[in-house]
Amino acid sequence: MASIAEIESVEEILNGHLPEAEREAVRKILYGKETKPLTIPQAAISLAEKEDFEIKGYAFAAAQEQLRSPRIVRVGLIQNKIVVPTDRPIKEQRDALHQRISTIVKAAADAHVNIICFQEAWTMPFAFCTREKKPWCEFAEAAEDGPTTELVKDLSKQFNMVIISPILERDSLHGDTIWNTAVVVSRGRYLGKHRKNHIPRVGDFNESSYYFEGNTGHPVFQTEFGKIAINICYGRHHPLNWFMFGANGAEIVFNPSATVGELSEPLWGIEARNAAIANSYFTCAINRVGTERFPNEFTSGNGQPAHKDFGHFYGSSYVAAPDGSRTPGLSRTRDGLLIVEMDLNLCRQVRDVWGFKMTQRLDMYATSIAAAAEPNYEPNIIS
Amino acid sequence: MASIAEIESVEEILNGHLPEAEREAVRKILYGKETKPLTIPQAAISLAEKEDFEIKGYAFAAAQEQLRSPRIVRVGLIQNKIVVPTDRPIKEQRDALHQRISTIVKAAADAHVNIICFQEAWTMPFAFCTREKKPWCEFAEAAEDGPTTELVKDLSKQFNMVIISPILERDSLHGDTIWNTAVVVSRGRYLGKHRKNHIPRVGDFNESSYYFEGNTGHPVFQTEFGKIAINICYGRHHPLNWFMFGANGAEIVFNPSATVGELSEPLWGIEARNAAIANSYFTCAINRVGTERFPNEFTSGNGQPAHKDFGHFYGSSYVAAPDGSRTPGLSRTRDGLLIVEMDLNLCRQVRDVWGFKMTQRLDMYATSIAAAAEPNYEPNIIS
Repeated sequence: MASIAEIESVEEILNGHLPEAEREAVRKILYGKETKPLTIPQAAISLAEKEDFEIKGYAFAAAQEQLRSPRIVRVGLIQNKIVVPTDRPIKEQRDALHQRISTIVKAAADAHVNIICFQEAWTMPFAFCTREKKPWCEFAEAAEDGPTTELVKDLSKQFNMVIISPILERDSLHGDTIWNTAVVVSRGRYLGKHRKNHIPRVGDFNESSYYFEGNTGHPVFQTEFGKIAINICYGRHHPLNWFMFGANGAEIVFNPSATVGELSEPLWGIEARNAAIANSYFTCAINRVGTERFPNEFTSGNGQPAHKDFGHFYGSSYVAAPDGSRTPGLSRTRDGLLIVEMDLNLCRQVRDVWGFKMTQRLDMYATSIAAAAEPNYEPNIIS
Repeated sequence: MASIAEIESVEEILNGHLPEAEREAVRKILYGKETKPLTIPQAAISLAEKEDFEIKGYAFAAAQEQLRSPRIVRVGLIQNKIVVPTDRPIKEQRDALHQRISTIVKAAADAHVNIICFQEAWTMPFAFCTREKKPWCEFAEAAEDGPTTELVKDLSKQFNMVIISPILERDSLHGDTIWNTAVVVSRGRYLGKHRKNHIPRVGDFNESSYYFEGNTGHPVFQTEFGKIAINICYGRHHPLNWFMFGANGAEIVFNPSATVGELSEPLWGIEARNAAIANSYFTCAINRVGTERFPNEFTSGNGQPAHKDFGHFYGSSYVAAPDGSRTPGLSRTRDGLLIVEMDLNLCRQVRDVWGFKMTQRLDMYATSIAAAAEPNYEPNIIS
C-alpha cells in the first residue's frame, strides 16, 4: 500500500486510474464545473523547469453581460519549502527565501499574474511548534517598511503586481508586540495590513505563545484588480470570519496557511471551497510544503516522545469559485506556482442565481448572535 | 462516456477502479478517517431486499473517557422516490408514501435505530416547481395532529424511536398559513416543530410562492438519545444558520432536502460536511431520489421550453462527523436507508482538540454582524 506521504496529488490518481467512461462524471460531482487549463507562456515554463517548481494554470469562465465588461484577473498562489536548514543564521534563512520567492514571482510575471499571494509566515520556518522565543522572534519585522516589505515593494513595482505578503510582524511602536500579519502592497507601495483573527492551540501549532488574536477586523483592500481580503490559516475553520470579509465586499479571499497532513488534510478541500460557495466569492487556499526539522527537540502534546520535526506540510494549494467548482490542487510535495484566471463578474452572477445574500436574514442573526455571545446565554432547548 | 444520471455512487466507482495501493490514501484525503461498516441484522436486510430499497450501515468511533460513558446512538436517514404518479388523488399519493416509509421504518427498527429522519416534504411530490396552488396546497396539514403526525406518533411509540418528519404544514389557527416544517415526535408524542429558515428562489424551487421564512428561530430538541436540530434544505447554504443550531447545543443536525443534479450536486458533499467540522457536531444530509413528472407543463426560468418533469433528485444521503470524516453516500438512484452509529462524546472530544468554540470570538461578531445588518452599513474597505 502506498504511504500517504508518497501521494503526489489525488486528482492525478483519479485521472490516471478512472476509465474515461466514468472519469468526467466523477470529476464533475467531486470538483464541479470543469476549469479549463490555461496556456502558460514558455518563459514561465522554462523558469519553472530550471528552478524546479511546479507550474499549473486554470481558468474559470463567467457569462457575458450586456452592461458590464468582463473583469478578468489572474491570481498567483505560491507554495514552497524552506530553503536552508533551520539551524542556519536567521538572516541566511530569510535571504534564501527572499531569493527563492523572487524567482517564482518572476515566473508569475511572465505569466501575466496581477495579484499574488505567498504562504503564511513565508520568510521563516513554521517554528511555533518549538515554543522557543529565541531565535524565532527575530524573524518578526515591521509591516510597513521591514526588509521583507521593502523587497515586496520592489517586486510589486517591477511587475505591476498586487502582492499579499504574510509575515511575522513586529509592532515596535506598540509594546514590541508580535502579530501574524498579511501585508498588502500595490504599485510598489504599502496599501495596508490584516492581522490573523483566530489563533490555534492544537497539536504543534503553539502560535498563541507568540501572538494574540488580531485587532484589524475584516478589512477588504480595493486594488486596481478587484476587492481582496485575507483570511489567515486557522481562520478558515471559522465561517463567521469568512462571512465578514464577504459583508465588506471581498471578491477574492486568500487563505495563506501552514497545516500538516495528520491534522487537517481531509478538511482542506472542504473549508475554503465551502466559503466560496456560501459567500459567492473566489477563495484561494495556500499551504506550505515539506517537513521542517528543528535544532532542539519538542513535544506535540499527544503523548508521543519528544522529536525534532514538524509533520508533513502537504501543499495542495487550490482555488475555488463562487459556483462551487474548484481547480485541481498543486503537488503535495513540491514547490509550486498556481496561476488562475477568473472573471470577477461571476460573483454577482452567482448571487443573482442562488440568492444567498438576499435570503440571509442578517437582522435575525444580528439579534441571535448578540444574545449567544452573552456569558449567561440560555440556549433555546425544547424538552 | 457514462451519462451522469447512470452513476450509482462516486464512492463505488472509486472502490471499483483505484488500485489498492492508492485507494486507502485517496479515500482518507477525500473522506477522512475511515467509518467502519456496521453489521445490520438479517431481518432488516431481508426486508430491504424484498421491498427493493438499499440498506447500508456505518459506525463512527470516539475515544474512551474516564468520567463519561460512551453515548452511542443510531440514526437512520431515509431517501425515497414518490410512489404513485402526481396526477393521482392527493390522498392516494399520501397514503402510498405513508405505507412505503412505514415499511422502511420497520427495517430501521429491526436495525435498532434510535432517531430517524425522513426527507423534506416527504408526504408529497416536490410540486413547488409548478407554482400551482391547486391541488398541491392540499398536502399541507397540522403539525401537531395532522394525519401524518398521527402516523408518525404510532411509529414512534411502536418502535421507541425519535422521528423527524418534515412536512408541508398548515397553520389553521393563524391565517391558514402554509409552512415548510419539521415535526419532532418522541415516545409517541409531539415534541415540537421547526420551520425552514431560508427559502430558495432558484431554478424550479419556487417555494417562496407557497411559504415564508420560518419564525421558530433555531430550536434544539432534547431527546432521550441526544440533542438534535433540523436545518431544512436550502438552510444548508447558510453558515450562520448552522452556527446558531450549534450555539443552542445541537449534537446532531439533520438536513432533510430536495435538490437536483444540475443545480447543486458538486456542493452536496461540501456544505453539510463543512458544517459538521465548523460546529463540532454530526450532520445528516438527506436528499430525495428520482425524477418527478407533473400533470401540467411549467417553465424553469432558464430560457428553456416549458416541460413537465423536475430534474434528477440525486439521493446521495450521507452523515458527516465533527472530525471531518464522512460515510459514503446512499445511491444516486434508489430508495435507501442509511444507518449510522455514533458516539456523541466525539463532539466534545473534537472541541477539546480543535478549540473552534474557544477561539470563535463571538463578541467581535455580535458587534460586526449587527453593524453589517444595518441598511446603511459602510463596508470596511481600504483603498
